[in-house]
Amino acid sequence: MRTRSDQLGNPRFLRVMNERLLLDHLLAGGPTSRADLAKITGLSKPTVSAALAGLEEGGLVHLAGRELGRPGPVTSLYDITADAAHVAGIDIGRDWIRVAVADLRGRFVGRRDGGNPARDGEELVSRVRELAHAAAADAGLDWTSVATAVVGSPGVYDREAARLVFAPNLPGWEGAGLVDRLKAALEVDTVIENDINLAAVGEHAYGVGQGKANFALVSIGTGVGMGIVVNGELYVGARGAAGEVSFLPASEPAGGDLAADRDVLRHGLTESAAAASGVVRAARAAGLDLSTAKEIFEAAAEGDPVALSVVEAEGRRVGGLIVAVAAVLDPELVVLAGGVGRNLDLFGDAIQRRFAELGPLRPTVVASTLGDSGVLLGAVARALSAAWNRILDSRQAGVAGLAR
Amino acid sequence: MRTRSDQLGNPRFLRVMNERLLLDHLLAGGPTSRADLAKITGLSKPTVSAALAGLEEGGLVHLAGRELGRPGPVTSLYDITADAAHVAGIDIGRDWIRVAVADLRGRFVGRRDGGNPARDGEELVSRVRELAHAAAADAGLDWTSVATAVVGSPGVYDREAARLVFAPNLPGWEGAGLVDRLKAALEVDTVIENDINLAAVGEHAYGVGQGKANFALVSIGTGVGMGIVVNGELYVGARGAAGEVSFLPASEPAGGDLAADRDVLRHGLTESAAAASGVVRAARAAGLDLSTAKEIFEAAAEGDPVALSVVEAEGRRVGGLIVAVAAVLDPELVVLAGGVGRNLDLFGDAIQRRFAELGPLRPTVVASTLGDSGVLLGAVARALSAAWNRILDSRQAGVAGLAR
Repeated sequence: MRTRSDQLGNPRFLRVMNERLLLDHLLAGGPTSRADLAKITGLSKPTVSAALAGLEEGGLVHLAGRELGRPGPVTSLYDITADAAHVAGIDIGRDWIRVAVADLRGRFVGRRDGGNPARDGEELVSRVRELAHAAAADAGLDWTSVATAVVGSPGVYDREAARLVFAPNLPGWEGAGLVDRLKAALEVDTVIENDINLAAVGEHAYGVGQGKANFALVSIGTGVGMGIVVNGELYVGARGAAGEVSFLPASEPAGGDLAADRDVLRHGLTESAAAASGVVRAARAAGLDLSTAKEIFEAAAEGDPVALSVVEAEGRRVGGLIVAVAAVLDPELVVLAGGVGRNLDLFGDAIQRRFAELGPLRPTVVASTLGDSGVLLGAVARALSAAWNRILDSRQAGVAGLAR
Repeated sequence: MRTRSDQLGNPRFLRVMNERLLLDHLLAGGPTSRADLAKITGLSKPTVSAALAGLEEGGLVHLAGRELGRPGPVTSLYDITADAAHVAGIDIGRDWIRVAVADLRGRFVGRRDGGNPARDGEELVSRVRELAHAAAADAGLDWTSVATAVVGSPGVYDREAARLVFAPNLPGWEGAGLVDRLKAALEVDTVIENDINLAAVGEHAYGVGQGKANFALVSIGTGVGMGIVVNGELYVGARGAAGEVSFLPASEPAGGDLAADRDVLRHGLTESAAAASGVVRAARAAGLDLSTAKEIFEAAAEGDPVALSVVEAEGRRVGGLIVAVAAVLDPELVVLAGGVGRNLDLFGDAIQRRFAELGPLRPTVVASTLGDSGVLLGAVARALSAAWNRILDSRQAGVAGLAR
């Protein structure tokens, strides 16, 4: 309490609070007049004018135009200077690496998606660096001008061991020191976060999780993972491993046979059974000669009876997983994402049948609307919030302008 | 932000903030001098004196004595007037009902534990009322002088349906309107909360959860349930059903056979297999002629090989449950409680063996130290915090004294 009163007695703190209010509105509402900003924020007109002047001097807002066609004097509109700084989001997956460079509004100004041919951690680091520089160049920027990059990766960063754990799908990615080498290669301020946690952030910022205080995003594709939003914030658990549902004990009989296999243990029983490779394995066991989960779902969509039974079994596995999540978290919503998870239209009924077999819980399940960009959007959202906080913190510390 | 600055400009708000600071210290630290209170809180001595005078006038603090044996002038010590108000905690279980009446320090001044012979909801309401009045009488109080009662009960209160759900272990307890009838019978301000959620609150306030920001309390006894603390606060989920782990899909083969049974569905696969009745069923199937889980654990403690194998199997089920919790929540700590759960010394090794079979997660598991009183302590902690908030809110509103 005392700290807060001390801060409130500090005029610079109050000024930056007012600036933040105005910026929040301009980010959400677009170009706005001084009078409307005063009305919306409840600040006095002189306070709004002083704050806008400070922000304009700092290069963060500018006069965006004049509102025409209204009676009375011409009204000036202020807007965010979106290119005052840039941030980047990076999504490192087993098959694809995606990089987006965005302005302060979150608009993508450069984007590169590239295959991931890396056979070890070092190759992967070079490939990420190459795509990052290309994405910045697309926007006419030098990569090192990026204020903050947020990288989504499978696995969990273990601070004590200074390496990623639980990332069996990326060869060599669990090596000691690799995260540090990635940071060094990228040069700019870089934060690493679990990819599925970022997908939940993306869903909260731009997808079906908007306005939801408590929800879970379950991703089923190459791997199986979950991101959790509690009270509107990402919840990562005590060691960052919340949502590692690949390790849920599998309720399907297949789990019993898998348990002896060391590789299965590394991936987790649920991931081994329910991820894309599990779907392919089940399809082959059923006599289907298809080599990807995508082809199997397509065959099911065309009515192939064997593919339909494989998809039904997958839906039941996913249903069991969602019941486990609901029994622990009781989320408002479970968002399904990932190459397998997005097929809710094909296995939604099987999921519901599994719910009924397991008891009274009936969690609400919806498909993500963000396609392949969920992790990338979450990474950009995180990077934006870090960049804005840093900008405002430096204004509060009295450092004028931006480190560009 | 504006609301907060407005409040800070309000002298009554500031005064009550200061009073709260002093009360917090007196609750934690016991009798303290004016000078020490000023030192500890950082408030000026005149501010402390004014706040203490206000609190004394309101009947919340009193001069508790004088500190002797120190050189210099005699020092007056102030203390909380703990009997300025009383609260109650009530724990309604299938076999026992427990009531505690506590003073404003949380000290139990009256307590009654009684059997629960009720065959329906109405009988249960009468029995609770009878024990509540008796517990108050033990403290020389009239029950209706209690400021707030918090009731822990199995199940989840469904606001829309205005009744408890998921409470299959209490006959008639899911009836419509029953919670309202309980509130009417108790007359005082009454809040109902899931019993295991309160056990987690109790553990956070008085047990091994003290100082832990993120932990889960798993209770295994008559039923199976979990209470979750996230960022130091109870997390109850979107509909209050977080932690209903009785409905986790069971990973043990037994689950498969149980699934056809409607009663099993109502209890959940995990509760049916892992609760006390599941242990008794498993023991009988193994040829043991014992009728309670307690007797089975006692036999195992004495080295009976059949009882030991039954306990081993139960430990493996509990291990699977804890892995599921860890895969979702990654808590700092899993606290085991309940008549079955408290036997960590007997099945701790089996739990660890199950962890190893299921993958790399190794959650920290400890036994609760609160015995049978966890729910009751949590109910009292909740009631105390409600009572203090109400007292301070009414001081802020300018209502002098207390409604006693």
